[in-house]
Amino acid sequence: MFRNQYDTDVTVWSPQGRLHQVEYAIEAVNQGTVCLGLRNDKYVVLAGLKRSPNELASYQKKLHKIDDHMGVAMSGLTADGRSLIKHMRTEALNDKYVYGKTIQGGRLVLELADMHQKCTQSYVRRPYGVGLLIGVCDQTGPHLYVTEPSGNYYEYYSMAIGSRSQTARTYLEKEFENFNTCSLDDLIKHALKALAASLAGDVELDNKSASIAVIGADKAYDLIEGPPLQKYLDAIEVEGGAVMEEDVVIETPDL
Amino acid sequence: MFRNQYDTDVTVWSPQGRLHQVEYAIEAVNQGTVCLGLRNDKYVVLAGLKRSPNELASYQKKLHKIDDHMGVAMSGLTADGRSLIKHMRTEALNDKYVYGKTIQGGRLVLELADMHQKCTQSYVRRPYGVGLLIGVCDQTGPHLYVTEPSGNYYEYYSMAIGSRSQTARTYLEKEFENFNTCSLDDLIKHALKALAASLAGDVELDNKSASIAVIGADKAYDLIEGPPLQKYLDAIEVEGGAVMEEDVVIETPDL
Amino acid sequence: MFRNQYDTDVTVWSPQGRLHQVEYAIEAVNQGTVCLGLRNDKYVVLAGLKRSPNELASYQKKLHKIDDHMGVAMSGLTADGRSLIKHMRTEALNDKYVYGKTIQGGRLVLELADMHQKCTQSYVRRPYGVGLLIGVCDQTGPHLYVTEPSGNYYEYYSMAIGSRSQTARTYLEKEFENFNTCSLDDLIKHALKALAASLAGDVELDNKSASIAVIGADKAYDLIEGPPLQKYLDAIEVEGGAVMEEDVVIETPDL
Amino acid sequence: MFRNQYDTDVTVWSPQGRLHQVEYAIEAVNQGTVCLGLRNDKYVVLAGLKRSPNELASYQKKLHKIDDHMGVAMSGLTADGRSLIKHMRTEALNDKYVYGKTIQGGRLVLELADMHQKCTQSYVRRPYGVGLLIGVCDQTGPHLYVTEPSGNYYEYYSMAIGSRSQTARTYLEKEFENFNTCSLDDLIKHALKALAASLAGDVELDNKSASIAVIGADKAYDLIEGPPLQKYLDAIEVEGGAVMEEDVVIETPDL
Amino acid sequence: MFRNQYDTDVTVWSPQGRLHQVEYAIEAVNQGTVCLGLRNDKYVVLAGLKRSPNELASYQKKLHKIDDHMGVAMSGLTADGRSLIKHMRTEALNDKYVYGKTIQGGRLVLELADMHQKCTQSYVRRPYGVGLLIGVCDQTGPHLYVTEPSGNYYEYYSMAIGSRSQTARTYLEKEFENFNTCSLDDLIKHALKALAASLAGDVELDNKSASIAVIGADKAYDLIEGPPLQKYLDAIEVEGGAVMEEDVVIETPDL
Amino acid sequence: MFRNQYDTDVTVWSPQGRLHQVEYAIEAVNQGTVCLGLRNDKYVVLAGLKRSPNELASYQKKLHKIDDHMGVAMSGLTADGRSLIKHMRTEALNDKYVYGKTIQGGRLVLELADMHQKCTQSYVRRPYGVGLLIGVCDQTGPHLYVTEPSGNYYEYYSMAIGSRSQTARTYLEKEFENFNTCSLDDLIKHALKALAASLAGDVELDNKSASIAVIGADKAYDLIEGPPLQKYLDAIEVEGGAVMEEDVVIETPDL
Amino acid sequence: MFRNQYDTDVTVWSPQGRLHQVEYAIEAVNQGTVCLGLRNDKYVVLAGLKRSPNELASYQKKLHKIDDHMGVAMSGLTADGRSLIKHMRTEALNDKYVYGKTIQGGRLVLELADMHQKCTQSYVRRPYGVGLLIGVCDQTGPHLYVTEPSGNYYEYYSMAIGSRSQTARTYLEKEFENFNTCSLDDLIKHALKALAASLAGDVELDNKSASIAVIGADKAYDLIEGPPLQKYLDAIEVEGGAVMEEDVVIETPDL
Repeated sequence: MFRNQYDTDVTVWSPQGRLHQVEYAIEAVNQGTVCLGLRNDKYVVLAGLKRSPNELASYQKKLHKIDDHMGVAMSGLTADGRSLIKHMRTEALNDKYVYGKTIQGGRLVLELADMHQKCTQSYVRRPYGVGLLIGVCDQTGPHLYVTEPSGNYYEYYSMAIGSRSQTARTYLEKEFENFNTCSLDDLIKHALKALAASLAGDVELDNKSASIAVIGADKAYDLIEGPPLQKYLDAIEVEGGAVMEEDVVIETPDL
Repeated sequence: MFRNQYDTDVTVWSPQGRLHQVEYAIEAVNQGTVCLGLRNDKYVVLAGLKRSPNELASYQKKLHKIDDHMGVAMSGLTADGRSLIKHMRTEALNDKYVYGKTIQGGRLVLELADMHQKCTQSYVRRPYGVGLLIGVCDQTGPHLYVTEPSGNYYEYYSMAIGSRSQTARTYLEKEFENFNTCSLDDLIKHALKALAASLAGDVELDNKSASIAVIGADKAYDLIEGPPLQKYLDAIEVEGGAVMEEDVVIETPDL
Repeated sequence: MFRNQYDTDVTVWSPQGRLHQVEYAIEAVNQGTVCLGLRNDKYVVLAGLKRSPNELASYQKKLHKIDDHMGVAMSGLTADGRSLIKHMRTEALNDKYVYGKTIQGGRLVLELADMHQKCTQSYVRRPYGVGLLIGVCDQTGPHLYVTEPSGNYYEYYSMAIGSRSQTARTYLEKEFENFNTCSLDDLIKHALKALAASLAGDVELDNKSASIAVIGADKAYDLIEGPPLQKYLDAIEVEGGAVMEEDVVIETPDL
Repeated sequence: MFRNQYDTDVTVWSPQGRLHQVEYAIEAVNQGTVCLGLRNDKYVVLAGLKRSPNELASYQKKLHKIDDHMGVAMSGLTADGRSLIKHMRTEALNDKYVYGKTIQGGRLVLELADMHQKCTQSYVRRPYGVGLLIGVCDQTGPHLYVTEPSGNYYEYYSMAIGSRSQTARTYLEKEFENFNTCSLDDLIKHALKALAASLAGDVELDNKSASIAVIGADKAYDLIEGPPLQKYLDAIEVEGGAVMEEDVVIETPDL
Repeated sequence: MFRNQYDTDVTVWSPQGRLHQVEYAIEAVNQGTVCLGLRNDKYVVLAGLKRSPNELASYQKKLHKIDDHMGVAMSGLTADGRSLIKHMRTEALNDKYVYGKTIQGGRLVLELADMHQKCTQSYVRRPYGVGLLIGVCDQTGPHLYVTEPSGNYYEYYSMAIGSRSQTARTYLEKEFENFNTCSLDDLIKHALKALAASLAGDVELDNKSASIAVIGADKAYDLIEGPPLQKYLDAIEVEGGAVMEEDVVIETPDL
Repeated sequence: MFRNQYDTDVTVWSPQGRLHQVEYAIEAVNQGTVCLGLRNDKYVVLAGLKRSPNELASYQKKLHKIDDHMGVAMSGLTADGRSLIKHMRTEALNDKYVYGKTIQGGRLVLELADMHQKCTQSYVRRPYGVGLLIGVCDQTGPHLYVTEPSGNYYEYYSMAIGSRSQTARTYLEKEFENFNTCSLDDLIKHALKALAASLAGDVELDNKSASIAVIGADKAYDLIEGPPLQKYLDAIEVEGGAVMEEDVVIETPDL
Repeated sequence: MFRNQYDTDVTVWSPQGRLHQVEYAIEAVNQGTVCLGLRNDKYVVLAGLKRSPNELASYQKKLHKIDDHMGVAMSGLTADGRSLIKHMRTEALNDKYVYGKTIQGGRLVLELADMHQKCTQSYVRRPYGVGLLIGVCDQTGPHLYVTEPSGNYYEYYSMAIGSRSQTARTYLEKEFENFNTCSLDDLIKHALKALAASLAGDVELDNKSASIAVIGADKAYDLIEGPPLQKYLDAIEVEGGAVMEEDVVIETPDL
């Protein structure tokens, strides 16, 4: 009933100094499937729930490798995220080729944030409808970054985004002070517990839908999915549902 | 009566974080004629109902060959699909010429999805109003991909899209666990039965309207239409209507 | 009274997944003067009613030669059609010059359809308001194609488009099974009878307004108008009106 | 009271398949000062009423020479017509220079019509608000063409356009069958009589306002105005008003 | 209360075939300060009322020299006129340089009119809001041209434009038949009398506000302002007001 | 309550031949802080009130030097004025470099006015919201020019613009006839008195807010502010308020 | 309820000569987190409150180094500010490289202001929604500049911007006369006290959220955060909250 004349154009300010279109794009992130990340001073762990649109479909990858020392989890419009990930990979590759070393995480995140910002100031493109969790472990140690459609980015100890992510954040806030004294295995278990917390009541975490990625100073990007994930699930006493035969699990090729 | 101010521009977010124009383009796919695909670990089978706009017209091809190892079925705006198929063929050809080998299916699908995504972020072009089922059999085995106007793509064991495709999906969901133990002939019969399931009550599947394409590791793209299809139709005891004399069947040249 | 907010921009989808502007352009075709085509396995025949805007004006050509093996009839906006025909002639000429042989009909039709499609996806140009019947006889035999403003194209045994074309289509549907056994003369008579069927009650077909073009494997594009057409008109016992003296008939130069 | 939402943009189709902006541009032609043309098999005659905006102004030229074998009369927006005539002269000159011979009339008219068509399909420019009568006498004999803002063009035996042109057309329809047996002098008199017919009741044709151009196979573009026109006016017994002294008549330089 | 939907865009035709924006631009001319011109067969005289926005301001030049044989008076938006005059001077200079002779007046006027026309057909620029009186004396004798925002131009014996110009026109219509027998001095007096006629009742013509320019075959552009004008003012018995000391008169540098 | 449909686009004429957006930009000038200029036949004096947005801020410069022989005072949007001043300086520098002499004031003012005019004819940029007083003393003597957002420019003996400038103008109108017999010191006092006249009742002119610039044939641009201004203020018996310690006065660096 | 038709486009003037969109962008600055700056004749001090969006996030940097002699604090849209800071760093670097010396502060501020101004005159980009406090100490001594989205910039003795900045300004206004006699330590304490003044009642300043940067003639940009800040906090008797272990403090890498 209320017609807001300031919210259909990204280049129009509201009298309150807000950019409504940017806020609506953030809403698209809030409605994506949950993903989260956490770190201590040795490792970054990313976790996500793979989504299958249909019983007949394979699961959609939630975690994506950028380089040996960097990975991404995303929530929101998958197609938008894919476009950004593609750009990140190219940049990481360029740096390796030109400078002979891996790109520093913070620098790539900053560039990403600038791509977001440009879409909020020009009428040519809409803001990206995706939030990214970027886990990186470079010469400055492990980091976890979060980017927003607004072009803002933050560094976090641990963070969860997407629908129903509030319960995961509550878990992380309660536990994050213990992360630094954790072993990697315990860190992974915290990630799975936080993920489980964000599930709706009757859904259970299993090795088909959960997905974990680990990056460390001494450990290149390592994706843990399917059966290798089971031991962690068992350990946190979250029973998976009827597990598909392993040979039937198909993977969408990495984008 | 309700005027939605957020749904006439693809670059405008709704307050709920949705892009209505993309959703409306998906509706164009839902209203196209049905097509479907299914696979086991040896073959991919695509199936479609050829549409004739008029008694005097030839049937419109539903299945299109991209390369020896790849084929496409489409639902939605034919003209939009044609434009995308043209691009896929060029890409497949380029790869053969440049690298001396066939393009990997997933890579081509990813590029296709990016073409879709770009149309959802810019005001220059509307989103494509077509969904594609891509069957491919490359060094990584047989795959079935589905693309959406949103730029999303999924891998499926089997999938049906288009109008009345729900009943076909129901059939596929019930049967797909048996596909892996199927012979190719049985796989084709499953495709035809699923297709038949999606027909309106008084319409019957015949060798003029049904169309099947098979791709396998040891089998280049093979289109089965008309009389060669009859034995499968007979086998599933779906009686075709009055079959036209064979020599009268005209084929629209492949696009 | 009903204001449709989705129908003034060709790049806007309606919630039902339709492109209204494309549908309105098709309406322009429906209101053009009638033209039709029919074929058997030796010949394609195009027929049209030449329109004179005024007693003092010459008749407008309805049939246009593209090349020896190809001709076009059109309904809708003449100026739009002329622009497309110009393009077709250039293409046909290019192929002759570059490859030393005549262009295949289906390939040219496909390109034409792509020109239509592009106008339905971009805000720069409106969709073409013209439908074309393309008669062609190449190494693959005789074909009759129909293009639409939407970018769709179909192959037909016989088809009529334009205002009052329904009655012509009814005639063609009733008779088309006999075409293959017809002589060329009989085929021409069928074309004239179908054309006559589409006339309003008190209008009669005569050799000034009717126009026939024949293309065959052994017969280059042959336009039959004026007195040479009379014997066919007499044969079908459709009496022409007061025929102008032959030397007074002026022809608009072919476009 | 009735708001037509489809008539303010030339690239928008109405649901009835019409382009209203093109129709409104044609209305600009209907309100221009009258001009007309007629031909037999030897000559084309163009005639127009020169308009003076004010007692103190010279008369505006209505007839314009393109080349020795071609002339133009126009009705509608003079400034638009001037832009088109400028283009025609350049083209005619180019052809002479490149091919060493005069351009064929029909070819130039076709090109002109394409310029009109382009303005009806793009949002960049409005349709031209002018109609042209083109008289030409080339190797194919004398022709009279008429172009419309829509991009349509027609060949006529004789035609009148502009405000109050209906009465001129009525005269021409009644008499045109006699033109072929006419002498050139009689043809000129028919032109003047038709022109006189289109005048409002109390206005009389005189040698200041009437203007005649003649083109023939053996006769280069010949403009007859002022005193030389008087003998024809006398012959048709149309008395001119108070004739200005001849030396006072000023001519706007040809555009 | 009446909302005209066709008058805010120069590229939109009204249903009556009018371009309202062009008509509104002409209204800007009608509200400019008056200027006028008149000629006989030896001389052209331009006259204008210099406007001072304020008691403290110098008078604005109304008459501008283009070249020795050409001058301009303008009414309407001064800034628009300045832009056109700048173009005319450049053109005149170019011609001198390239062809070694002065440009013909009619040719420059035509080019000017084309600049106007282009602004009426494109959405990029608004129509110029200025009317020009161009006095020229070239090898074809003296001429007086008037251009309009529409792109129309006319040749006149004498003409006045701008606010309250109707009374000046009335004077000119009554007297213009005597111009050809006039001496140059008498022609200047006619110009001043016509100018005086257009003044509001209590305003008097003086040598500060009135401005005269003379061009003849044997006389380069000659501007008569201030004291040298007084003898003509005295002669027509129009008493100037309190004349400023001559040395206080400042001239805006010519644009 | 009254909705004016012609006032939101600078390229749209109102039916009265007005450009409302230009008029609104002029309103921005009327609301800027006051500035004024006056001249005799030896000197030009510019004066302005420096504005401090806040007790903690330095005063904003109102007077800007372009070159030794030219200075500018501005009222309206400071940021717009700065952009124009930057352009003027570049031009002045270019002329010195290319021609080895200072640019003539009138020529630079004309160019400035053309920059204004272009913004009133194109939809690309809004009109500049600033008025400039340009004081210049070149080989043609001292001049005072005023430019408007409309692209108009005038030469004045003396002028004041900005809010409450009417009382300053009244003072100048009363006194300007005495300027020519004034010494430079008296001219400066007239400027300060006019400035004082424009102040609201309880505000007093002091050496922090008032600013004077002098240009003469024998005197390069000289800015008089702060303590050196005090003797003039004392002389006109306008007592400044509590003067800040001199060493605390900070100057914004010249733009 | 009141619909303002002049406030959705930055290139549209309101009838009152205002640019509403620029004013709305300034509102975005008013709602950013507070930051402030103050100077005496030796040092500039910048202070800001680092914001943490969440307990799990690191604090966002408020102060950014441009070069050894220049730093920036910002309030408003962080992403917009980042884009401007990036530009400033590039410029500072360029100057060092090209001229071999550090850029003068005022010159860089001016360029920054011009970037703002351009966004207020063109429809291509919205105005930047950020205000910057720039502290610089160059050959002309210490300066504190403030830029606004309007393109205005001011020099201040001391200033605070952002939400609740009014109380900080009140403190600064009361104390700024003592700054020049302050030691650097006292200057820092004034900055912290002003910052504390702007906090909501129950929030306390601690060494995690407060951030200070100092620049002086003899002191390169020095950022004081965390424990090193504690002694100043203790000195002003503002007790920090529960301080995190130092080794847990993570810094977002400088942008």
